Amino acid sequence: MDNIRVIQIKQSIFADNDADAQKLRGQLKQEKTFLLNLMSSPGSGKTTTLLRTIERLKHQLRMGVMEADIDSSVDAEAISAAGVRTIQLHTGGMCHLDADMTRQGLRELGTEDLDLAILENVGNLVCPAEFDTGAVKNAMILSVPEGHDKPLKYPLIFTVCDALIINKIDVLPYFDFDMDKVRQYALARNPRLQIFPICAKSGEGVDAWCQWLKDQVSAWQTDTNP
Amino acid sequence: MDNIRVIQIKQSIFADNDADAQKLRGQLKQEKTFLLNLMSSPGSGKTTTLLRTIERLKHQLRMGVMEADIDSSVDAEAISAAGVRTIQLHTGGMCHLDADMTRQGLRELGTEDLDLAILENVGNLVCPAEFDTGAVKNAMILSVPEGHDKPLKYPLIFTVCDALIINKIDVLPYFDFDMDKVRQYALARNPRLQIFPICAKSGEGVDAWCQWLKDQVSAWQTDTNP
Repeated sequence: MDNIRVIQIKQSIFADNDADAQKLRGQLKQEKTFLLNLMSSPGSGKTTTLLRTIERLKHQLRMGVMEADIDSSVDAEAISAAGVRTIQLHTGGMCHLDADMTRQGLRELGTEDLDLAILENVGNLVCPAEFDTGAVKNAMILSVPEGHDKPLKYPLIFTVCDALIINKIDVLPYFDFDMDKVRQYALARNPRLQIFPICAKSGEGVDAWCQWLKDQVSAWQTDTNP
Repeated sequence: MDNIRVIQIKQSIFADNDADAQKLRGQLKQEKTFLLNLMSSPGSGKTTTLLRTIERLKHQLRMGVMEADIDSSVDAEAISAAGVRTIQLHTGGMCHLDADMTRQGLRELGTEDLDLAILENVGNLVCPAEFDTGAVKNAMILSVPEGHDKPLKYPLIFTVCDALIINKIDVLPYFDFDMDKVRQYALARNPRLQIFPICAKSGEGVDAWCQWLKDQVSAWQTDTNP
């Protein structure tokens, strides 16, 4: 806990979260800061994927990370040790973040000197998908042990995401996970989904994901359309 | 979908869910029906664990299963094929079940001739833990690939459960999962938690879990205290 700032974020008072999220994106556009919202189930490897992403991008982009958790700060400590600005958001039991909660976090993180801010959302495939955080892009991780049927059971999160990272491909031999089927099910939910099979532990496949993310940041910073 | 009844359950109108859950338990007590609420993350193996449980108990107990999902009926079809009465509950996007939603499901399932009704809750470690469904006992599954730190990050669900099933022990060699640590962290949250390491795929360890469940049903049916 020593060097991690822990912020208790409060439930939003805004009734219209979509409008609030749009407003937050407008502010981020002016600052030329790209916000990525990273979602997944508990234990799919969000933190390890972030660590690999930070290693590859921290010398090219000015990065900051917000770790949202119901409790504990173990992930924030790991991210902070990787050498990027990190804060821990405690949601006080809340199962998701909305735009105003995200804004509270960004204010504490400080974004004016950042190219890329990443929100690691609460581990949950259901509720985070229902709330626009104000992020420029949404990404999710599905790990091989969770099974290829998840786009059938948790459709909304696959619909709202721009990128799907399929993690833990090193354990494919030990699970009944059909990569073709998961692609088919996920793309049926969302044909524009970019899919990146990776092994965050070894780093396999992470370069392609990081290239996509870098391209998105670059487009956001140069595109003058609001 | 052929032989599976799909029930759209509606959000509860009751403000005091705890009182409503207590009332539902009283009704189940009169019918001598035991209700188990089974919770976990998406993909931890709830359905496979249920299939193994049904194989072992269906000739000793009259069983029925309610599969709660946001969408799809793939799990209910698998459970129904195992030869027990099964209904599919669609939550219409809701991330959890409360007591009144559970009551709607039980009414459709029909409980008067059942010893054991099992609710497979929505895959989510956060929200289902916050709502008493009226179940006699709560059980959760944590699978090895999710990691041993989950009791630190999702404390409430470990606190409200009576049994913790640790599934996918066959893949222990491929993950950094510390069985001693998970026991230590989980028991720190809840010292009375019963812990059952299993491999639902092979059936290893399932007997001990089923014996515990059978003992709970028996105690519920014979104990005359309300």
